[in-house]
Amino acid sequence: MIQMECDILVVGAGVLGLSSAYYLKKGNPEKSVVVVDRLGGPGQGNSAKSEGGYRNLFTSESNYLLADSTIDFMHHMEDDMGHDLKLSEMGYLFLYSEEQYARYRGALKRIEERGSETRIIGKEELKGMIPGLVTDFEGDEEAELLGLEPVDMGVFGAKCGGVDADALVRAYESEFLKAGGETRYGTEVEELIIKPVEELEIPGEPFVWQDVHITGVKTSKGDIEAETTVVATGVWSEKLLDPVGLDSYMRPKKRQIFAFKDSRLSSLLEVKGFNSYGAIPLTILPKAAILFRPEFSEGTFWLACADDLGRAFGLEDEPEAEEDYYTNNVYHVLVKYFPCFEDVRPVNMWAGQYAINSFDSLPVVTGEEGLIYVGAASGSGIMKCDAIGRIVAAKYAGEEGAELYGGRRFKVADLGISERNVERETLII
Amino acid sequence: MIQMECDILVVGAGVLGLSSAYYLKKGNPEKSVVVVDRLGGPGQGNSAKSEGGYRNLFTSESNYLLADSTIDFMHHMEDDMGHDLKLSEMGYLFLYSEEQYARYRGALKRIEERGSETRIIGKEELKGMIPGLVTDFEGDEEAELLGLEPVDMGVFGAKCGGVDADALVRAYESEFLKAGGETRYGTEVEELIIKPVEELEIPGEPFVWQDVHITGVKTSKGDIEAETTVVATGVWSEKLLDPVGLDSYMRPKKRQIFAFKDSRLSSLLEVKGFNSYGAIPLTILPKAAILFRPEFSEGTFWLACADDLGRAFGLEDEPEAEEDYYTNNVYHVLVKYFPCFEDVRPVNMWAGQYAINSFDSLPVVTGEEGLIYVGAASGSGIMKCDAIGRIVAAKYAGEEGAELYGGRRFKVADLGISERNVERETLII
Repeated sequence: MIQMECDILVVGAGVLGLSSAYYLKKGNPEKSVVVVDRLGGPGQGNSAKSEGGYRNLFTSESNYLLADSTIDFMHHMEDDMGHDLKLSEMGYLFLYSEEQYARYRGALKRIEERGSETRIIGKEELKGMIPGLVTDFEGDEEAELLGLEPVDMGVFGAKCGGVDADALVRAYESEFLKAGGETRYGTEVEELIIKPVEELEIPGEPFVWQDVHITGVKTSKGDIEAETTVVATGVWSEKLLDPVGLDSYMRPKKRQIFAFKDSRLSSLLEVKGFNSYGAIPLTILPKAAILFRPEFSEGTFWLACADDLGRAFGLEDEPEAEEDYYTNNVYHVLVKYFPCFEDVRPVNMWAGQYAINSFDSLPVVTGEEGLIYVGAASGSGIMKCDAIGRIVAAKYAGEEGAELYGGRRFKVADLGISERNVERETLII
Repeated sequence: MIQMECDILVVGAGVLGLSSAYYLKKGNPEKSVVVVDRLGGPGQGNSAKSEGGYRNLFTSESNYLLADSTIDFMHHMEDDMGHDLKLSEMGYLFLYSEEQYARYRGALKRIEERGSETRIIGKEELKGMIPGLVTDFEGDEEAELLGLEPVDMGVFGAKCGGVDADALVRAYESEFLKAGGETRYGTEVEELIIKPVEELEIPGEPFVWQDVHITGVKTSKGDIEAETTVVATGVWSEKLLDPVGLDSYMRPKKRQIFAFKDSRLSSLLEVKGFNSYGAIPLTILPKAAILFRPEFSEGTFWLACADDLGRAFGLEDEPEAEEDYYTNNVYHVLVKYFPCFEDVRPVNMWAGQYAINSFDSLPVVTGEEGLIYVGAASGSGIMKCDAIGRIVAAKYAGEEGAELYGGRRFKVADLGISERNVERETLII
């Protein structure tokens, strides 16, 4: 049963699906572009569950271009296009021990040389700026047990901050709709339809000797035929790609956010010298990849932990946050560096999943025969969404390069597979 | 319950597990090295289901080194070490149309320049050598429907052929046992054991702030503790690696073999000019990546098809061959080029799975914290097994380079992830 035909079908109304859809429609106003999603609205998979941090600090030049231009565009969306993204450029503050800093020095130098505004802040200055911060643990047996690194310095990135991921997704959706795109929510895509390029109407097609292409999808509400199908289903991509033998180049991994709202944390909003908010930046501890940031619109703090070895890969439809994870894991480290968190309990918590590309940690934009796959964004798709959407549209158009916001160019094939050409990212949080 | 302790535990008695185990034991005679496998003997997963073809023709320099040195070592095993591997150096014959050849010309030139013995054979000469071969299909409507490419030439590789994969696996097993290694069959490894480096004996360990390492495995017969655990479980690797958050860099894909024994095929054993057997080489058709080779010990022909887009990824414990796949898919193409197959039906068929690395099609040897993972060999692990085993042992020893058979060196980190440095393979069958 054919429910619908369109020129370009985008599966997945997350941030990458909607930014791709927007640039596809914008570049091809005469084409019908439709976004489908199994959920009831945009961004309800993992996009809106994100901590919404953004940074232009990446060791990989490609990552830098993707993020830096997206950050510029997000400002443009707020300043000139009338979208309230709750952008708060509070900065990112990486706290390091001498030893850790030495390990990253080369990478940080390259980051600085390419023009990212970074600043090294010494321990004493840091302590002056963030009065509650504990930097040394000499004689603290518990800290030794926890294997805590001292804070010897901070690396501050100014062109970094937070964005309301939900607002960002809705902004792309509204621009897409304004440009004449269509959305169909509550429509679950069950499988890709693969057909011979020259159909013979013989049972058993496609045969191995037939050239094949993707001609659309089967959904819970009937088939959709499309000249081009864009798969932008994040961690769920393998469910669509595996059956046709295409790799999704990622493994799904759960990540949790814990939200705090407590007067005992008010000192973190009285921090000078980093940003116009007089607040602590998004801060990454020197241990266990724990990070937190102020979320100004609700007066809360959001905390996450980029755990690694020992935490499972595997697709979950409804990942759940575990309070234990905070109380038994994160809390003990956090409270050492920031004693203001003592006895403060999360008022809210939720979990989502990252689509982690362990090969090089960069997103993938690839495809063939009527299909474009965009994904494997490794947890930083939101802060690169604008550039990635433009690259998807350029790939669709068969262009060699995509023009990113601000005029910089990105070679489309660099994010593909057969001619992939990216530097592995090493600044992963 | 601890069943056993050892220094090095190799999980998986396939060809990569056993070659790794052999070089690990050989290089560390004082260490206890144990191979475990859930099945009753060596190679019973996918190794012995292979077609057993080997070639030194790869576009990737790394692949060439891995395969070429392994081929040399297999000859050494037969000639000097007393193993009957049923090596039959019949050569590989790629049949190409002009158009296909033009596409591969650059790659083939590089292959030739590095010293692989290849020979271009023109159409007329080919027809003289293989009397039954059909090269042109003008006016044949069915051939047009099938989209067949004509045969305009052949590219013959002399240092290529077939090996009895089961015999090869058993040869490594016997060398490993001779060196003092141990095997435990019928022992299913259920999960990797991950522990804090400094255990506190607190419930909930490991916590995110603890450094962790792999300390062995849980099996159906109790735990095995090991200083180093080598995961060499091929397509099953994700079952062990996913739960600890390590990527296996591969997707499993079914491949089928069809065996033929029929007097109508005897003309294929009366082919001159390719090899000392007077037989047709392993031959790859210019359509649908169909290939077949004589298997001399049983007087049969083995046929396979390297299908691609449209055939699912996904782990199967007992993949089954489908006769339909031959009769409806492969047969129609095969019989056009080789009419001697007309009405010949397979006498046997079986299926296994490839562990396909879609990123660059090269194997992965990586690991950290007590674990080494070797896999993602993309269907060509058998023909590279000796080199890969040596690289695993070099990685274990912390050496920068591995010495391959014949004295050539291979940088261990090149097959790793964080400093991976290989050329993508483009000659994939």
